[in-house]
Amino acid sequence: MTSAGGQQASADSLPTTVTVDLGARSYDIQIGDGLLNGAGKLIAPFLGPDRRAIIISDDTVAPLYADALVHSLQAEGAAASVVRVPVGEDSKSFARLEQVLEELIHAGVERGTPLIALGGGVVGDLTGFTASTLLRGVPFIQVPTTLLAQVDSSVGGKTGINSRHGKNLIGAFYQPQIVIADTETLKTLSARHLRAGYAEVVKYGLIDDAGFFGWLEDNGAAVVAGDPEALQYTIATCCRAKARIVSVDEREHGKRALLNLGHTFAHAFEAEAGYGEALLHGEAVAIGMVLAFQLSAKLDLCATSDVERIQAHLIQTGLPTSAADLPDIRFDAPRLIEHMRHDKKVEDGWPKFILARGIGESFVAGDASAVVAEEVLRDFLRTG
Amino acid sequence: MTSAGGQQASADSLPTTVTVDLGARSYDIQIGDGLLNGAGKLIAPFLGPDRRAIIISDDTVAPLYADALVHSLQAEGAAASVVRVPVGEDSKSFARLEQVLEELIHAGVERGTPLIALGGGVVGDLTGFTASTLLRGVPFIQVPTTLLAQVDSSVGGKTGINSRHGKNLIGAFYQPQIVIADTETLKTLSARHLRAGYAEVVKYGLIDDAGFFGWLEDNGAAVVAGDPEALQYTIATCCRAKARIVSVDEREHGKRALLNLGHTFAHAFEAEAGYGEALLHGEAVAIGMVLAFQLSAKLDLCATSDVERIQAHLIQTGLPTSAADLPDIRFDAPRLIEHMRHDKKVEDGWPKFILARGIGESFVAGDASAVVAEEVLRDFLRTG
Repeated sequence: MTSAGGQQASADSLPTTVTVDLGARSYDIQIGDGLLNGAGKLIAPFLGPDRRAIIISDDTVAPLYADALVHSLQAEGAAASVVRVPVGEDSKSFARLEQVLEELIHAGVERGTPLIALGGGVVGDLTGFTASTLLRGVPFIQVPTTLLAQVDSSVGGKTGINSRHGKNLIGAFYQPQIVIADTETLKTLSARHLRAGYAEVVKYGLIDDAGFFGWLEDNGAAVVAGDPEALQYTIATCCRAKARIVSVDEREHGKRALLNLGHTFAHAFEAEAGYGEALLHGEAVAIGMVLAFQLSAKLDLCATSDVERIQAHLIQTGLPTSAADLPDIRFDAPRLIEHMRHDKKVEDGWPKFILARGIGESFVAGDASAVVAEEVLRDFLRTG
Repeated sequence: MTSAGGQQASADSLPTTVTVDLGARSYDIQIGDGLLNGAGKLIAPFLGPDRRAIIISDDTVAPLYADALVHSLQAEGAAASVVRVPVGEDSKSFARLEQVLEELIHAGVERGTPLIALGGGVVGDLTGFTASTLLRGVPFIQVPTTLLAQVDSSVGGKTGINSRHGKNLIGAFYQPQIVIADTETLKTLSARHLRAGYAEVVKYGLIDDAGFFGWLEDNGAAVVAGDPEALQYTIATCCRAKARIVSVDEREHGKRALLNLGHTFAHAFEAEAGYGEALLHGEAVAIGMVLAFQLSAKLDLCATSDVERIQAHLIQTGLPTSAADLPDIRFDAPRLIEHMRHDKKVEDGWPKFILARGIGESFVAGDASAVVAEEVLRDFLRTG
């Protein structure tokens, strides 16, 4: 494994700490191999007078890791109980939110009782929104167990559920007290889900770190193969990038929108594919990033060779980049465009696109590219 | 009308401005007679790029005042539409929240589109919580039309809905951009609802302003009779007191709990009475304040004469202070106590009570008074 920009991947297995600097709402991200068994000690400072925590997890992750987390809390003299929700995007619903909230209130949760999200992005988003609204806010802790959640969704405080009309349209900015990313939990993640999370990793290189993208071209194979050292370096690099952006623009009035690179396209594809196993979020983001760079190339902002280089790397790590990679899904251009027009970043009828002048040189564009975006989308579908 | 503490009630009908100082989230409260017709001008600075606002109101208030507000916005070149919800506490439900959110998303609300609460506490709480969760937060404006909302619930950012297990257990701290309190709208409020709001006025005197309580003993009759000058002075005094408390403790980690004087008892009575016209919130607060002072007297913290003085003033303004004043409601001590134990301010099984060393000398107590609180409650019910 080579290093980028003079940074070295840690030679031993010591955890890495990344701080998200948000004044009174600052918090640490702990990244390391095997952190789960000692998570109780990390969580203990955030317990309330009732010395109790509630773990929210799903039917896949709870059987794998809830016991370890419960035991690590008990070792600190804390009580812990587990609330399980079904696997998948359907748990980010109003009905599930209401059910979980009423269950927690019935269980006598107090203002100081932390809710711990143990799982991927769905569990993190639902738990964070639940924590933000329960008794007008109880402490929230993230224990992400997917690569996507470890590099992206568990950091930065975006929480929420889905509307009938689109994803994440209802929610809150609510920061966790601590994020504990145990790379060992990624061993039980399927290769496909690990690759999907890797798309968000690539995103950080494309936004503003060409050096990291170069490092990924050399080491991406080790990352998606689950090499713990490569994973820890990757996750720490992504979390540092996200922390940097979030700390200057917590509520996405400006720079934070860069994190949506490829996402306006991705959300439209996901909406059409039904937010399920047919097309994972990270897979949609891979396609979306290629389209964002194609759009940029079409606007003469970046070179076509950049698009090809990105596409080559995504293909190398097994991610979809063209309609031909998704033979089982039928997309319809007008409906995709309709979805894009209802993206929640819309102002005056069209979303703001993230464009790029090259790899690592992304920027927030106005809405002038909307017509060209439609062209790019139609081209993409024609090649399917 | 006499003045208290050297402060003069405004001699003319110029509006009063009170600022809630919360750093980047600071905002003004405008209080005056007939402000509604010019509200558009006050709201204009908070419009987004779509130059549109959504007014949320109920079936009683909308027919009275929505047109005036819409016209005042149109006069500023803004579009405005009205979403109506049913009158009463039932609108603070999960089902109503979901329906309003989905309706607003379907209507294409953007991140900069303000939601304006036009009505009393229920409309304000529902609208504020809707605004806090819609697209993870859109601008929120309060146009309170009841005395209770003008002196209390519209200021300070507490928003929320009710759980199956209790009131306001789900919600957010979400500050408005501006509060516009038009005292003229109180003319259409029933005498009973005006009196109920007056209970919260008295609360501010009892918390930390004995001078204001004295002023109310002299001028309370003018306030509940709807005298515009007395009302404007009263509302401004209450808003200043609330702004002072909220600005040092926005999220109720300490001093803000003083605003709950009488409320632990009140919530239990309301829960038993069903949150409706049988017992209004302010009426329950009147009883709750008397009980909080009786509890304080029983603990030898304050004089019995203070309790009698408070009770005399509340009776003089037509508010209930004893079980005999509520002949139509059957209360049950064990169930009231059970409700109190589930108050959301609970820590370690019992809520924190607000006690007093005298009128204007309230403080946040520990839970040691729980047993005596039960006694006070049982005494109260025996006199019914």
